[in-house]
Amino acid sequence: MSVTAAQGFEAAGVAVGLKSSGNKDVAVVVNRGPLKAGAAVFTSNRAKANPIIWSQQAIADGVVEAVVLNSGGANCFTGSFGFQTTHQTAEKAAELLGVSAGDVLVCSTGLIGSGDKVFRAKVLEGTQQGIAQLSPDGGDDAAAAIMTTDTVPKTAVRQGDGWTIGGMAKGAGMLAPGLATMLVVITTDAVLDAPQLDAHLRAATRVSFDRLDSDGCMSTNDQVTLLASGASGVTPDEAEFRAALIEVSRELSAKLQDDAEGASHAIAIEVVGAASEDDAVEVGRSVARNNLFKAAIFGNDPNWGRVLAAIGTTQAAFDPYNVDVTMNGVRVCTQGGPDRPRDEVDLTPRATHVRIDLFEGDAEATILTNDLTHDYVHENSAYSS
Amino acid sequence: MSVTAAQGFEAAGVAVGLKSSGNKDVAVVVNRGPLKAGAAVFTSNRAKANPIIWSQQAIADGVVEAVVLNSGGANCFTGSFGFQTTHQTAEKAAELLGVSAGDVLVCSTGLIGSGDKVFRAKVLEGTQQGIAQLSPDGGDDAAAAIMTTDTVPKTAVRQGDGWTIGGMAKGAGMLAPGLATMLVVITTDAVLDAPQLDAHLRAATRVSFDRLDSDGCMSTNDQVTLLASGASGVTPDEAEFRAALIEVSRELSAKLQDDAEGASHAIAIEVVGAASEDDAVEVGRSVARNNLFKAAIFGNDPNWGRVLAAIGTTQAAFDPYNVDVTMNGVRVCTQGGPDRPRDEVDLTPRATHVRIDLFEGDAEATILTNDLTHDYVHENSAYSS
Repeated sequence: MSVTAAQGFEAAGVAVGLKSSGNKDVAVVVNRGPLKAGAAVFTSNRAKANPIIWSQQAIADGVVEAVVLNSGGANCFTGSFGFQTTHQTAEKAAELLGVSAGDVLVCSTGLIGSGDKVFRAKVLEGTQQGIAQLSPDGGDDAAAAIMTTDTVPKTAVRQGDGWTIGGMAKGAGMLAPGLATMLVVITTDAVLDAPQLDAHLRAATRVSFDRLDSDGCMSTNDQVTLLASGASGVTPDEAEFRAALIEVSRELSAKLQDDAEGASHAIAIEVVGAASEDDAVEVGRSVARNNLFKAAIFGNDPNWGRVLAAIGTTQAAFDPYNVDVTMNGVRVCTQGGPDRPRDEVDLTPRATHVRIDLFEGDAEATILTNDLTHDYVHENSAYSS
Repeated sequence: MSVTAAQGFEAAGVAVGLKSSGNKDVAVVVNRGPLKAGAAVFTSNRAKANPIIWSQQAIADGVVEAVVLNSGGANCFTGSFGFQTTHQTAEKAAELLGVSAGDVLVCSTGLIGSGDKVFRAKVLEGTQQGIAQLSPDGGDDAAAAIMTTDTVPKTAVRQGDGWTIGGMAKGAGMLAPGLATMLVVITTDAVLDAPQLDAHLRAATRVSFDRLDSDGCMSTNDQVTLLASGASGVTPDEAEFRAALIEVSRELSAKLQDDAEGASHAIAIEVVGAASEDDAVEVGRSVARNNLFKAAIFGNDPNWGRVLAAIGTTQAAFDPYNVDVTMNGVRVCTQGGPDRPRDEVDLTPRATHVRIDLFEGDAEATILTNDLTHDYVHENSAYSS
């Protein structure tokens, strides 16, 4: 159901040859209202793709009529020609939908540096075809059309008290703080205005997409968009809505983690006993980004020394001689020294849990990451070929 | 010649079974004077191995009689028992040499968490054997004894006007800013006191070992030590001495880079046109740590988009649309857009040169790193087995 689970939305996904596979590669999501409220968060990379530069302007007034998304090319570092391509995409959609181009967001994903005349022609063609095929049942086609190296489409839906939230996501690499080649569109038929959506979206991404750090690399193209149609006519309880949005965001995050390029383990790094939530996030992220730790997990090696070495690079409050590390339920390190023997730890399951207790306070956070594998290296060494 | 190239030093390397291979695993370097001056820099990791904690105290007075180094075990996260092992090692050496234990530095390298009674007994035995075998020709044995996954011993020597600098290094992984499982001992017979040595050593490491970032992981055990015997009787020109020390440090750094675990490319990332040297270092390091860039180089893919995406994560002064990137002499990116075709770039040589011009100023810096390979993943997934 994806982005069309909520009332008031139509979507489509079409194939115009941006992908050499011939699979769907342009998605369109349209808000039929009555509300046209939207909010979005963007990559914090200072090298931003053209669709990001465009969409950051377009979202400023909180009005979003449609989102056009393409796979098969990131339209990043493509200069003014690339920016014109994004602009023309929004203009084309606006013309066909009878709305303002300034209310059309654009997202692109694929190889950086690709965005020539052929790319432009195909994206414009896809925009036209997609709008022609818009349907209240088009959510799954749209979810398929934004896939790149993803092996499965990723969607999530939650029902509230008379309202619905549904979303789609793509991304299987470069997932990193501040987001990364992650395109996400979430829709709701709840009655919420743009400032409300913005607050809920930032609260949800902070504890979901922002805590997914597959390989420490930050994309130039990330965008997470939340749209409200108000078509249910129901004004939700704000706390209930936020909780449901967090659930949808976390489900999509977990699906991105599960499908990360070449990964053989989906690792949840749970940091507890931190002096602050910021400390917990910093510690979790430092471990998530440590290549030696990630390679050890690939080799089913409960190498807690690498965990402590990674924590040592942070500014977080901690005492190396008062840290416990538990892997898949076995406490391998107590107070900074060896505890249970390594052969008691079974790291063969894909789902891996590392728990770090800093004994400094009550704050906690969980960072999701992946192991560093032969397949990761292979897929990313051959990505552009 | 290694650490015994300069007059006034004796060294040894012995095998006591710390390495399962049976290769040499304990090295001793002794300063016979007349000066006993020393300086050292240490890992900036807050999780420090026991030898680091010990040596940081021992170096404080600038007097160093000897350095005992072992491979086959890092003696890190081994608690108070591990610290006692380090202490006993210094005591043993001091007793046999007739000096103060507080003037003996200790360095360890190998698996974190290893440091039991068997380890202690072997290190003490190695200390005794090493001191019994001290020789003015022992530098090469010492250089062999500190190897872990190194495939070759690493030494460098420079002659000045009546004085000599010689050094040995080990390290083939976890090389990172602030140093990392890198053990280096450099000796000189020049007449220099401890504060002078400290100033020269910090100046040299700043532009050599600190700019070597193989995999972004910072070790718990890094130590670079500089000792002066004054045996030449020559007080060197300070600028000449510093220049020679930088040459030795850079040669050892390059040898560490060339031998990095599993690497198939030795990559020099030269950043020019930076607003400040700090900016140049930050930009170079961000690229050096980008797994996607590193995997691309492994695949001989001149993927400049990943270079720009990495720069975008820094705080350095730069305009994404005014950056040039040249790979092995071919300018693949001009002003943030595509320039020469990718197939003009030959990335098959092991030595790889990436030049980034930020057009913001006159500062520059070069960071040395390696690619991310199947072998890197393999070696580090099986390290502790």
